Amino acid sequence: MDAQPLSTGPLPTFPSLLDAAARIRLHARVTPILRSDALDTAAGAQLLFKCENLQRAGAFKFRGACNAVYALDDAIAARGVATQSSGNHGAAIALACRLRGIPATVVVPEGAPKVKLDAIAGEGARIVRCAPNMRARDAAVAQVIAETGATLIHPFDHPDVIAGQGTAAMELIAAESGLDAIIAPVGGGGLLSGTSIATRALSPDTQIWGAEPEAARDAFDSLASGELIIDRVPDTICDGLRGHLSPRTFALIARDANGILLADEASICDAMRLVWTHLKLVIEPSSAVALAVVLGNPTRFSGQRIGIILSGGNIDTASLHVLLA
Amino acid sequence: MDAQPLSTGPLPTFPSLLDAAARIRLHARVTPILRSDALDTAAGAQLLFKCENLQRAGAFKFRGACNAVYALDDAIAARGVATQSSGNHGAAIALACRLRGIPATVVVPEGAPKVKLDAIAGEGARIVRCAPNMRARDAAVAQVIAETGATLIHPFDHPDVIAGQGTAAMELIAAESGLDAIIAPVGGGGLLSGTSIATRALSPDTQIWGAEPEAARDAFDSLASGELIIDRVPDTICDGLRGHLSPRTFALIARDANGILLADEASICDAMRLVWTHLKLVIEPSSAVALAVVLGNPTRFSGQRIGIILSGGNIDTASLHVLLA
Repeated sequence: MDAQPLSTGPLPTFPSLLDAAARIRLHARVTPILRSDALDTAAGAQLLFKCENLQRAGAFKFRGACNAVYALDDAIAARGVATQSSGNHGAAIALACRLRGIPATVVVPEGAPKVKLDAIAGEGARIVRCAPNMRARDAAVAQVIAETGATLIHPFDHPDVIAGQGTAAMELIAAESGLDAIIAPVGGGGLLSGTSIATRALSPDTQIWGAEPEAARDAFDSLASGELIIDRVPDTICDGLRGHLSPRTFALIARDANGILLADEASICDAMRLVWTHLKLVIEPSSAVALAVVLGNPTRFSGQRIGIILSGGNIDTASLHVLLA
Repeated sequence: MDAQPLSTGPLPTFPSLLDAAARIRLHARVTPILRSDALDTAAGAQLLFKCENLQRAGAFKFRGACNAVYALDDAIAARGVATQSSGNHGAAIALACRLRGIPATVVVPEGAPKVKLDAIAGEGARIVRCAPNMRARDAAVAQVIAETGATLIHPFDHPDVIAGQGTAAMELIAAESGLDAIIAPVGGGGLLSGTSIATRALSPDTQIWGAEPEAARDAFDSLASGELIIDRVPDTICDGLRGHLSPRTFALIARDANGILLADEASICDAMRLVWTHLKLVIEPSSAVALAVVLGNPTRFSGQRIGIILSGGNIDTASLHVLLA
């Protein structure tokens, strides 16, 4: 790849994943790995689902948030943590800060679903509303930090967050040997980056694939062109995958992952229904894209043993209606 | 209790549960036990959910079906198994017979949901349709048995089925010590009977409660009156709990369980939504009644450590709409 040098900041390494695993052990769940004969038959492959929808706060995001919050020195932690997220990272930060006993402030754009606000507020975090654009959001976060001295923990562009997310794949590989591939959804790229670091270290022969909605294919196109694309506004049911990579996650994924596979919106909804029906799990649309790319690429994965990271289960009623359509 | 002597046939004992656990070990899943801070707060108690919705074929029924199918002598098994069930037992028998490599015939009344028929047929069982009344059903089963020499495995009035169902509570008690109570839904009483036998043997200080829809309170009234009630046609969303006890399950439950608690239909739907939202699990309405009785009896269970058996996850679209209501 001929990308120009990027300013990535420090890239997390496998030892930082080991630190993360030790740091979150008392707080995060070792989530179960489930499977289904019917889904294996549908895929023509053996599928092992790492159920991060059963993680605390309903998504893998708690791993990274917990690691980053507990990695702070006491004096810095005491001033609190700030983040911007209308989604799972906000609730994860709120929970991690409650557990550590420090203040959390989450900047949330106007128009965010009430269910997400309730999840953040339910963990005791302060919510600051802002206009629904990036400039207003960044200004609000800067103001919180200026006023409180809080530390910013970004949803994915943060080495401790990436290291924490990688612990899901560490558990998957420890429990299931001989995986031919591991597949994780890609939005900002924190989960896929952490998954790649874990997999390259622990199971170097296992392929690593990102799964992305066709309607939000900025990571796919970034890898293909070698240039990080950040200027799109994707329209996909996968609300957790509308973000774009950062220079850091782009560099990690370009180095370690085998590539990105795409799935259209209809196949993502079908995959969500299949998980509901056969695994009896509530997952959010962003989680379903990984199964969708397996089912959409039968030749590539035929006969393989595949780990799939089900990233989260925080679905709102609108998405639920999709299941009934 | 002043009940007249009942013809119960042999009552399973704890050693038969140990046999069952050994017999099904290679086939059934040790299902995960999940919990949620939000549900603990809602209940004012510590709730440990034994997730039989994640069992093979989507319900605890596979434990009893598998035990009964594998308990058959080879020569008898070769002639196949017959049962009547439009629900989870039919699919469980079909799967168990497929695994053992013997024929299964399931008698299903006209009008049964297509999703259930598909589950049974998907495991390779023969389906025989009959008119939707008990006489036609019994006649159809008798004809299958006369023609094929198949062995009848009843959905709950069978010692090996009851013993198999008890293995869920065995796993729960082995994993979680110091339970104040275990709660299981009651329809025909197979699960509650097996649960009672396991609990009395392994954790004698733990209370055992059945959970029953108010709209199908035949077990509650049978225990209260001392007389087995079999002549009602209940109207409840809990399609798995519309049956009545048999003399055998009545005797076991009257002897070993602490009692039955009731929940109305609205509270059952609320409980199903709570499990969806906080445990991220798809459960069928019949499973939700156990949580509903905990939430409906806060004084009784306040501060306790409670095992709840989530019995199954085979929900149809009609029940799914309830979640959106």
